[in-house]
Amino acid sequence: MNYRYSSRLGSFSSSAVREILKLTQGDSIISFAGGLPAEEHFPVAAVSEAFQRVMAQGNKALQYGLTEGYLPLREALCARMARKGCAVTPDDMLLTTGSQQAIDLLTRIYIDPGDTILVERPTYLSALQVFRSYGAETVSVEGDSDGLDLADLEAKLLKHKPKMLYVIPTFSNPTGKAWNLERRKAVLELCQRTDTLILEDDPYGELKFGDASLTYPSIFSLAPSVAGSCVVYTSTFSKTVAPGLRTGWVMADADIIRNMARAKQAADLQSSTLDQQTLYQLLTHFDLDGHIEFVRSEYEKRMENMVGLLEQEAWPGVKWEVPKGGMFIWIEFPSAVNTAELLKTAVEHGVAFVPGVSFYAEQPELNKARFNFSYTAEERAREGIARLSKALAHVGVGV
Amino acid sequence: MNYRYSSRLGSFSSSAVREILKLTQGDSIISFAGGLPAEEHFPVAAVSEAFQRVMAQGNKALQYGLTEGYLPLREALCARMARKGCAVTPDDMLLTTGSQQAIDLLTRIYIDPGDTILVERPTYLSALQVFRSYGAETVSVEGDSDGLDLADLEAKLLKHKPKMLYVIPTFSNPTGKAWNLERRKAVLELCQRTDTLILEDDPYGELKFGDASLTYPSIFSLAPSVAGSCVVYTSTFSKTVAPGLRTGWVMADADIIRNMARAKQAADLQSSTLDQQTLYQLLTHFDLDGHIEFVRSEYEKRMENMVGLLEQEAWPGVKWEVPKGGMFIWIEFPSAVNTAELLKTAVEHGVAFVPGVSFYAEQPELNKARFNFSYTAEERAREGIARLSKALAHVGVGV
Repeated sequence: MNYRYSSRLGSFSSSAVREILKLTQGDSIISFAGGLPAEEHFPVAAVSEAFQRVMAQGNKALQYGLTEGYLPLREALCARMARKGCAVTPDDMLLTTGSQQAIDLLTRIYIDPGDTILVERPTYLSALQVFRSYGAETVSVEGDSDGLDLADLEAKLLKHKPKMLYVIPTFSNPTGKAWNLERRKAVLELCQRTDTLILEDDPYGELKFGDASLTYPSIFSLAPSVAGSCVVYTSTFSKTVAPGLRTGWVMADADIIRNMARAKQAADLQSSTLDQQTLYQLLTHFDLDGHIEFVRSEYEKRMENMVGLLEQEAWPGVKWEVPKGGMFIWIEFPSAVNTAELLKTAVEHGVAFVPGVSFYAEQPELNKARFNFSYTAEERAREGIARLSKALAHVGVGV
Repeated sequence: MNYRYSSRLGSFSSSAVREILKLTQGDSIISFAGGLPAEEHFPVAAVSEAFQRVMAQGNKALQYGLTEGYLPLREALCARMARKGCAVTPDDMLLTTGSQQAIDLLTRIYIDPGDTILVERPTYLSALQVFRSYGAETVSVEGDSDGLDLADLEAKLLKHKPKMLYVIPTFSNPTGKAWNLERRKAVLELCQRTDTLILEDDPYGELKFGDASLTYPSIFSLAPSVAGSCVVYTSTFSKTVAPGLRTGWVMADADIIRNMARAKQAADLQSSTLDQQTLYQLLTHFDLDGHIEFVRSEYEKRMENMVGLLEQEAWPGVKWEVPKGGMFIWIEFPSAVNTAELLKTAVEHGVAFVPGVSFYAEQPELNKARFNFSYTAEERAREGIARLSKALAHVGVGV
């Protein structure tokens, strides 16, 4: 038959990252592309134990649960978030299939076709894809190492009257930057004044490098109260425990959460009960903070190793900022290099990354690219950068 | 701040079933409302063992996986479906967070606002909710005990030029009916001829009662080939293994599957890797068919018990058809009874069900109601029906 797809389908171009991931499975290509955590550090034994505890509780553990998510896990997460300055109750929280689903559900209940969403420049590519699939116009706001450019933000709030601002203020994907406190406060104030909802995406906040005394409070925690707050906050266990458990959470005014839960009923009824109960047992019986500190320090070493390799190579015209945390380093190549083209050469040389083009709402900077450093161990990263060096020589950089 | 929700939000009225489930948690109310499997029959030990096998495979088990789902599980499901007359490869299959997500993703890529979807009268309420949330017009087709009314279907295909027909031909939710073979073939032929996509929802197909020699081949299996097929088929492990593992699957032409996978990338990247691997180990090392046969026969006993209780009560003007399989019995009360009103009285008497009103695309029959028989054991069901009898007497039925 002739399939008559929706006009929405065009917005679901397959994400470049996922397509590259497919091409680079197996060991022959060293991939800096995926946003993958280091699997050798997954707490397998602890997850296993946690699961046994769940099963020991009896058959009910395998029954349908609430759309909002397993209540004891929401309670434990509220306690955890309270230690980070966020006063929330389980009614202000929804458990999701990764934080990706939180982005999708909020957009579903909040955005009509033609609404504007402001985003960072560059920003997380799969968020852009969600926004476009609901017919939103995405407009990017300029920024620097310390966060959004406040003048540009104010001008665009006035000009576009956006419904939402989407940001990753702490160790951004793809740049690894962190906003300073002043910018966080100013952006919150501007959005409060203009009734603009902030979607604060925080998958990497626990993975901070450098001066341990520095802290980056979430924008959510700076708002006076969750009731009526203009901030919706989402995070995930994918980077701190493991992605396979596929659990994220979102915190917001209880009315927003209630409406997101209604949308979730239609979307999938509920996420995996088993994963949520396993994570609850893990939070209760495992030193998660100790584990996170271990992973964090390992990622910091990998980042330093990667930066060291780049410094050694010293390709002419190639620049980067040292990431303040997270999983990614954002590399600028000479302006003549189109990183989407470079990727093809790189894959031929056995190394992969994500070209910058996908991370922009408009006017992409084609000479930039995202490199992940969390997944690849030091020696293999050294080999990957050596392969990249050959690929660059092939296109005339650093010859 | 003033929240400015999308116009779509209105379509996400919270499902009556879920709201009632919330009210009836705890043991004081006997609930025939939820579509819950009997949890005392969940294969807890087998799931536990399967999980240990997954963990024994090492850390990769907790990493991100493919959006399409764990390949060995798709392969095992293809072999399983082949035994039911469906020739499919893993490229024709996507794993989802329950079959609810399959309904959502297909609607997302196939339906534009204003498109018409034909549905059965009555039909699954949460499918109606999904369709409406994407702006579809839902129009119902008349039917009888043997399936859709072919003349009415043909007339409505001509009149509305629908993009899709949504059906549960085998042990329907809410009616427990099964279409005969002739109707299946005729509906397939009509839809092929008019380029109408059939979404065949089959969560209950394995739970067949009565004459074991009778079979109900899926409409999907009757189509000549999956390539270019007008049938999209979805099913789930929620009723045969356990809902807590939250895994469904959908089979269709590979192009449709590819497009649904793209939509899934935006929706949640992927479902739980851990649940999918656990189910794969379960399929490989556990006698699932033996387990299903056990559950099936237990549900048949509970259905017969329930029908026996209704026959004993013999409330005047109350009618039902004996379900041919599945989890539900659809009861017609005297025309003066509004079951939504009756529910309030019933809950006061300690018993719950789902009023019929939510199961209709239009012109609901207010004197009908759905009763689940799979969840409640015999003695408790007896007490539940006794309570219902008191509630009915209270509103003047059977006094």
